Parts: sequence; C-alpha cells; structure tokens
Amino acid sequence: MATLTYLTTTHFEFGALETLPKELKRAGITKPLIATDAGLVAVGVVETVLAAIGSDFAPCVFDGTPGNPTEEAVKLALEQYTAEGCDGIVALGGGSSMDLGKAVALLAESGGPLAQYDPLQGGAKLIKRVAPLIAVPTTSGTGSEVSVGFVIILEDGRKMTFASPLFIPLAAICDPELTMGLPPMMTAATGMDAITHCIEAFLVAAPNPPADGVALDGLWRGWQYLPRAVKDGADRDARWQMMMCSTEGAMAFIKGLGAVHAMSHAAGRIRRLNPHHGTLNAVFLPAVLRFNQEVCEDKYVRLRQAMGLEPDADLADAIAGMNAEIGIPSGLAEMGIEESDIADMVKYAQMDLSARGNPRRASDEDFEAMIRESL
Amino acid sequence: MATLTYLTTTHFEFGALETLPKELKRAGITKPLIATDAGLVAVGVVETVLAAIGSDFAPCVFDGTPGNPTEEAVKLALEQYTAEGCDGIVALGGGSSMDLGKAVALLAESGGPLAQYDPLQGGAKLIKRVAPLIAVPTTSGTGSEVSVGFVIILEDGRKMTFASPLFIPLAAICDPELTMGLPPMMTAATGMDAITHCIEAFLVAAPNPPADGVALDGLWRGWQYLPRAVKDGADRDARWQMMMCSTEGAMAFIKGLGAVHAMSHAAGRIRRLNPHHGTLNAVFLPAVLRFNQEVCEDKYVRLRQAMGLEPDADLADAIAGMNAEIGIPSGLAEMGIEESDIADMVKYAQMDLSARGNPRRASDEDFEAMIRESL
Repeated sequence: MATLTYLTTTHFEFGALETLPKELKRAGITKPLIATDAGLVAVGVVETVLAAIGSDFAPCVFDGTPGNPTEEAVKLALEQYTAEGCDGIVALGGGSSMDLGKAVALLAESGGPLAQYDPLQGGAKLIKRVAPLIAVPTTSGTGSEVSVGFVIILEDGRKMTFASPLFIPLAAICDPELTMGLPPMMTAATGMDAITHCIEAFLVAAPNPPADGVALDGLWRGWQYLPRAVKDGADRDARWQMMMCSTEGAMAFIKGLGAVHAMSHAAGRIRRLNPHHGTLNAVFLPAVLRFNQEVCEDKYVRLRQAMGLEPDADLADAIAGMNAEIGIPSGLAEMGIEESDIADMVKYAQMDLSARGNPRRASDEDFEAMIRESL
Repeated sequence: MATLTYLTTTHFEFGALETLPKELKRAGITKPLIATDAGLVAVGVVETVLAAIGSDFAPCVFDGTPGNPTEEAVKLALEQYTAEGCDGIVALGGGSSMDLGKAVALLAESGGPLAQYDPLQGGAKLIKRVAPLIAVPTTSGTGSEVSVGFVIILEDGRKMTFASPLFIPLAAICDPELTMGLPPMMTAATGMDAITHCIEAFLVAAPNPPADGVALDGLWRGWQYLPRAVKDGADRDARWQMMMCSTEGAMAFIKGLGAVHAMSHAAGRIRRLNPHHGTLNAVFLPAVLRFNQEVCEDKYVRLRQAMGLEPDADLADAIAGMNAEIGIPSGLAEMGIEESDIADMVKYAQMDLSARGNPRRASDEDFEAMIRESL
C-alpha cells in the first residue's frame, strides 16, 4: 500500500477502507458524522463504510448532500452534527459530499456565516479551528480528499471557493474499490474533472516544480486510462489509475486553477440546471486551451508529451476528441445553458478565485468569447 | 517566492536566506548551533548566514564537518551543542553538514549511540525526539534539506543510512545565491548526485506516483541545466534549476534509492580516499542502468522522455556522455579505488539500506560485476 505524506497522509490501494478505524482513532474521533448523499446510501456504499468503521465508534449519517452543495445543506448537516454531539467528520462521496463535510468542519469549530471566510476578502485569517475530518472519495475526479479547498453555493447565489491548509483532511483514504460501481457517464465526467485539474494547475504561473511534476504524472495516467475506465467499469487497473490521477490533480492545484474552473463555478451555480462540475470543466477546457496558447507554448510541449501526443498536435482538439470518445456533451447548449445565462456567467467567472490563477488575464469580453465558443 | 508544503515548508528563491530569522522564531530556537564546515567559513558563507540571522539570536558555529561525516565529528559537535546550551540547529552546507546536523539533532534529544537507530534493525522506534533543525543547503545535490534521511560513517566502519519522518528539517531554506561560488567540479559532482536521486527514486518499485512525477520533473530540469551550471557558474537560471532538481530529487527518494547508492555508500567509507558521494553516484549510474534495464523498460521510456532523448537512446550511454561532458572521472580507478577494495565494497553494498530499493535484486556477484564495470 502506498502511504503518501506530501500534503496529508494518504492510504491508497484497493482495500484501503480498512484503515478507517485506525485513522479515526488517530484523529481522536469517537462519534463521526458521515457526510454523504442519498445515492451512496441507496447503492450500499454507506453500509460498507459503516461496517468498516466497526463497533468502536458511534457514527451517524447525514445523507442530504446535493450535487453542487449549498449553504442550506451545510446548515442542516451542522444542526445534526451539533444535535448528535459529533466530534469529527467522515466526508464520504464525490466532491459535493467532501466539500460539504469540510464546510461543516469549519462551521462546527469557528462558527458561521460561511461568507466571512471568503479568501478573496482575507477571510482565511478568521478561521480559528476546524473539526477533525477524514475524507473517503467514491469518485475519481475532485481530489478534495487531499486539497486545501472546498466550494459551496452560498445563500446569496455565489458559488464560493474557500481555501486554507486547515481544510486538508487529516487523512485521505483512497480505495478504488469504492469507485467500481460508477456508471460510464459519471466516470467520464469526474475523470475529465481530474484531467482538468492536472492541466490547469500545471499552467498556473506560480513556480512550484514539484506540483508541476505531480500534475504531469496525473495527466499521463488519466489520459491513458480514462477511456478504459469509461468503457469497462470493472477494469481495476484503470480504476486505480484514475483515482491516482484525481489525487494527483488536487495535490497539484495547491498552485491554483484557471479560467476553466472560474467559468465552471459560474455555471455550476445555475440552480435550474444543477450542471455537473466535471462535465462543465470538460466542455470549457478546449476554449481555454486555445485562449492560453499564446502565453503557454513552452508548457504545452510538456502537456503534449504527458498525453503522448505528437509534438505539433493541437491540445484543444485532443481534448475535444477525448470528450467525444467518452460521451461528454458536445457543448453548454446540450447541457441546457442558454444565451440569457451568459451575462451572469461572465460576472461570476470574473469574481471567482480561480480566475486569478489563469496564465493569461481574461477580460469580461474574453470570458464571454470562451463561453460562446463552448456553447 | 515558491513556498512548497509537501514534505516540509521550503522557501525557495534567490534571497530566501532572509527567511531564516522568521523560521528560527517559528521553530522556537534562540541559540542555534550552526553545523557547517571550514570551507564555508573560509569563503565567507558562514559570515553571510550569521549576518542574516541578526542580533535576536545567539548562534555558535561548529565548522568541523568532514566530507563523508563521521560519528567522531558528530560527537564533537554534540559536545559543543551541550556545552554552549544550544536549543536547535542550523545545518548549513552540502550533504555532509546537513547530515551531521541531523545526527546531532537526534543525539541531543534521544541520546547515543547512533548505531542503535539503524533502520534495518528497527531502530526508528527508539527515536524519542529530535532537536529543532533548519537546513540551509549550499550545494545542489544532496537534497538533505527536505529528506527523511542522513548518512554517517560509524566508528565501526559502516556508512549507515538513518531514516525517519522526524529527520525532515522543520524548514528548508533554499537560496541559489549560496551556490553561486561552487567551482565547476563540485557543481558537476553534486549535480550528478541530484540527477541520480531523481533516476533511482523513480525506478524504485514502490507505488508512489506523486514522487515519480516530482522525480521526472527534477530530472527534466537537471538534465537541461547541469551543463550550463558547470560551464558558467554565474548562470543564475541554471543555479536555480539545479537547486530545484536537488530538492525534487530528495522529495522523490522518500520512495527509497537503489544499487547506485548502495555501492556509493560502500565506497564512500574508504577513508584513505574519502571519495565524493556525488562523483561516485555518477560513476556507478551507467552500470546500474544496464543492470536494471531488463525489468524497467516501461520506466526507461519515461526517463528518456524527461531527458529529451530519442525513444531508442541508450540511457547508460547518455549518462556516460554527460559525465564526460561535465568532467566527472572516467571510473573508480581514476578516483583511486583498487582491486583490493572490491570485496569490502560488495559486502557493504549488500547490507546497505538502498540495496533494498533497487528494482532488480542484486546478488554479490551482480554487485561485483557492476563495480568492475565502473572501474
């Protein structure tokens, strides 16, 4: 079993779930709130995790996490956490459940409202403590189990990114077994989320060569194995490699992210659609790669190498080709986004934390052009 | 300035030395022992560091670190540490000074003798505490500033590797300015040490893809910039890149190392020669790459890519070519190693911790063949 100690202790292997009781003890948690969603209860994953936790602990389950988690859901989970006297969190699921769990961990120890912790307003300095949290991903995409961030749709409609080293889980338990049941559509969409993390983090200008190396290694894996994982969900090697791509993507994005994520967050807040974050990333990625090309030619050489492409290959076309191969929607229109959504998307993309990481500054006009190109 | 928080907080940039007082405060050190060598006193580096420390601290200097540091030297430094009432260490220099500093930090808090901490005998569990230590490298090779290990020649003649997460310095201050004065020979030898770390760590079979990515990124930098740094020591970009290669090499070798290091440690204990560790690595590397080839073909593809070589290039020949270009000795014989040294080298290589990391198990006969090939 690979035990990685870069950002946090990460137990990574088929069967890693068995380390959960040990990690609960190490974290001093006796009564964890399992922050998860109803889908994972329905398919039996929550039951599997409760069995792995065993009888030395007194867990309770919050299964009300929506896709694109909201401040309202965070408050409901926090109420349960407090009412049941929980002393820590097991965040179990995809990015939505893990991010909700992180928000509960923050509010439980440092108090609300969430908006005060906006990193763009210096909110990180208001964080006093966070409740102990262990993350158990059930998708290969978000990498939230090793990341410094989480994203919540606030009651005022903003989809806000929060970031602090304190939000890194005390332990990440990455067991590819938990992803074996993911249907092809979700495998594709979450996999493109991971690939986008690797690419966008690598392109952030901040000098962090180790993170760059991790990003390229993740991309190398993801690009080879995503089509296999989509085609045959029982391909254990492909499931392992995709989970590693996801973890590496999030380790890398300690550097930041870019315009793809700025626009995905802006679109993710459209409640009538509740679009999938990974799918949005996949759809926006080609336009952003075209937009960034003029300032990133050196880095594109290394991206092509990691993807096994020819030296003169067009990166944006390669992504579009992958999207088509694995069944990602052809554009935003197919996802239900309309002309009338564009103005708000530009506004919220421009104020998103990730907009700052893009290697080429995007004006409102640039964002609008990239959104139209992605329709 | 890049602040990396993978294994430890690393301040990495020209001018990073200015962060030393802040890091001393954070570590709670008021009276540091500067563990260094006479050469760095002579060229004024110690004076520069004392000036950077400023008047809020009461440092004292131990400048008796020999190349390939010995248990005797560790004891002398420990005596000074105790006599002067020091409460922490600034390990300043190449691998020798940093490793000596780590040994003093261990003995100061957990007591001697050193040999009891042999990781091959389960010695890590005897470590109670280590004194706070900040590392400031003045070469680009060892990477000890971010590594879990140190190597000391014991009084009984063994060159022993010690390893524990507790040996990771509390902070690494990587200021390429401190390497600007390194002469070409030392630049070449230490640079090949760093390149060997990247290659050997990558080849260790243990699954740790993030470390693999870091290793390949370090190799990518080192392979391009080492000839430049050797040719023109004033090339600031090359100095920055080589220091990063060194740091990344050591981040990567948390996976372990291989037969090159097993043999270099075995040769490094020959006291009449006191051979340079990095030079030994450079000389052994081609033979080990030939020996490992049959079990590593997949990984060699990625090594060639990181080095910008043709897909059918011979890795061992490429290393030998680099050695020749930058003035590394053509073989062990040129370094003074003789036929009569071989039997002991085989014996000590076989019992070295690094022998366990090699992807292909080397018998005594294999070690002997590789040593003869490297003569």
